Amino acid sequence: MPTTDSHRHEYLKPDGRKLWLYGRQPFQVGEIPSPDSVPVTAHPYLRWHPLRGEWVIYAAHRQNRTFLPPPDYNPLAPTREGGVPTELPQGGYDIAVFENRFPSLVPHPGEPPRLEGVVTAPGEGACEVVVFTQDPEASLGSLPIEHVALLIDVWADRTRELGRRDEITYVLPFENRGVEVGVTLHHPHGQIYAYSSLPPIQVRALEHARAHFARTGENLGLTLVNDEIAAGTRIVRENEAALSFVPPFARYTYETWLMPKRPVAFLSDLSPEERLGVAELLKDTLQRLDALFGVRMPYLMTLHQAPTDGTDYPEWPLRFEFYPALRAPGKLKFLAGTELGAGVFANDALPEDKARELREVQL
Amino acid sequence: MPTTDSHRHEYLKPDGRKLWLYGRQPFQVGEIPSPDSVPVTAHPYLRWHPLRGEWVIYAAHRQNRTFLPPPDYNPLAPTREGGVPTELPQGGYDIAVFENRFPSLVPHPGEPPRLEGVVTAPGEGACEVVVFTQDPEASLGSLPIEHVALLIDVWADRTRELGRRDEITYVLPFENRGVEVGVTLHHPHGQIYAYSSLPPIQVRALEHARAHFARTGENLGLTLVNDEIAAGTRIVRENEAALSFVPPFARYTYETWLMPKRPVAFLSDLSPEERLGVAELLKDTLQRLDALFGVRMPYLMTLHQAPTDGTDYPEWPLRFEFYPALRAPGKLKFLAGTELGAGVFANDALPEDKARELREVQL
Repeated sequence: MPTTDSHRHEYLKPDGRKLWLYGRQPFQVGEIPSPDSVPVTAHPYLRWHPLRGEWVIYAAHRQNRTFLPPPDYNPLAPTREGGVPTELPQGGYDIAVFENRFPSLVPHPGEPPRLEGVVTAPGEGACEVVVFTQDPEASLGSLPIEHVALLIDVWADRTRELGRRDEITYVLPFENRGVEVGVTLHHPHGQIYAYSSLPPIQVRALEHARAHFARTGENLGLTLVNDEIAAGTRIVRENEAALSFVPPFARYTYETWLMPKRPVAFLSDLSPEERLGVAELLKDTLQRLDALFGVRMPYLMTLHQAPTDGTDYPEWPLRFEFYPALRAPGKLKFLAGTELGAGVFANDALPEDKARELREVQL
Repeated sequence: MPTTDSHRHEYLKPDGRKLWLYGRQPFQVGEIPSPDSVPVTAHPYLRWHPLRGEWVIYAAHRQNRTFLPPPDYNPLAPTREGGVPTELPQGGYDIAVFENRFPSLVPHPGEPPRLEGVVTAPGEGACEVVVFTQDPEASLGSLPIEHVALLIDVWADRTRELGRRDEITYVLPFENRGVEVGVTLHHPHGQIYAYSSLPPIQVRALEHARAHFARTGENLGLTLVNDEIAAGTRIVRENEAALSFVPPFARYTYETWLMPKRPVAFLSDLSPEERLGVAELLKDTLQRLDALFGVRMPYLMTLHQAPTDGTDYPEWPLRFEFYPALRAPGKLKFLAGTELGAGVFANDALPEDKARELREVQL
């Protein structure tokens, strides 16, 4: 663990999956449960898309979900005394991480099928679920700053552990929230995908960050943060350690980025003070998005750290990117022809106007 | 016009926009209307996304829609005698195309604003609306094959006219259908976006198609079609001129591609027989998607022709790509963390299984 004021224990679930519990205080737990004792047998594999130059994951086992949950069953809540087993035990922990029972990528996928005319590869990697809190009614933005800071430790810890594996090249923590964006499980949680090759979006980000670094000698993140502080018009909030802003090239109406002021490649590179500063703005960003229209804003949050191949990435701009799904009250942003067919986003709103709205939200 | 058996007339709308009407028979029309006589003043511009290496379009004028339509107003239906003016006149035409009143890209965008630290460019290009039929209750798949063949002529004609402009590098016709994917206007219609620079998805497609051509001496589309015919397992339907299939690297559950068997760069390169064959499979694909679950399948259809910079593209694989939004009855596919944060699609279903389902649909 990166900090001395938090606690972590590792467990094995009855079906063979791993579970990690984290607490701000020392804690004890009850029996370690699993919704199903049948071991996970997943053999995902990849097929190459020859016109996009991308791997596509095939995880057909995800359809074969044998376990039929009772109504109101919450697999992410602690198992109740005498109740149907969930994913988590009772106990005094704050945050839980476990290997996904329906993974798209796994540590030992086996050989992929051979297909005439199609390039295949093993679906090597990892998929984990991160439960943000034991409280099913909470949200990431409603948690105390110290709890959010612990989550930053958890992401740092899982990134370090997964990234240490030879076959893992990139670790992506994210949260997808809201029925509007397809989330059916409302207990506050996120996911972590770990990939065996650098994903396309990260390949391009690295290429552009590297070119900027070569040209200017400066980390692109530092340039962005300094430019935004100088311009002032797109800042949502600033503290000593971090900055949240609507990027000048926002693709989503209320797109918000959160960056530490000192460029780092990984969350684990943050000092305890910086970690708290980032946690404060993470909470602030989500509170503003919820307060903006007075409804829980559906969103995708992705955390972009550097590749985990063991080399240094002084050019990498660590950032959280938030893509809020609403562009106005009750109006969702849909990706259509120009976005999905050409890769060109069209935004009807100016980042400067939307940053002002977010800045002026009453919290 | 590419064929001698169709008819086209060009008109100027009261607000200065152009309108083109197409018919299989000679036709006459009434007064040319426009919902609003105020000329379109749009100054869209682009900002550069430094980490994705993409332009983002800003079209803030799209929010300033002055015209307040009456209830049940359909701007794509012919204007009724004495009724509120729509976009289209009365008359005997089959298909209409007009310049979008709220364009994301325009022929003369003017100078973009200068922004400190942000690279901007004019929003040069064109946005057109294509009305597939006068019948508001029809759908593209319900139209007669000869009507769909006329639409192929219309796309070919607009691509040629737009592509002839020096500043246009790429022309993308598409249809986005269904409330589930954000379409509020139910009259059968599509759109055309014309770009001044080759969009990112097309840049990569060209790069990969070119590499394949250099390596094998064969158009990648021809390789795909031949491989799919040889494999047989992913074919949806085949005729003399064309093939529809679930691509072996499908990203969406029921993703379907439609390709002519003879590789061409543009629809205008098709012979009249090939054009009819493509029209037949286009109609067939949409009928199958609608019959699959017994509901109107929401989808995005994009047409990928070659760049329009005047050079030859023997390596370009012309294709229609259909992205159906449902992955099961009542279940939408949402793009989440791995798709939007990493560019890696995860598909729970195998293309071979979904092709069989589509093949076995009773029409």
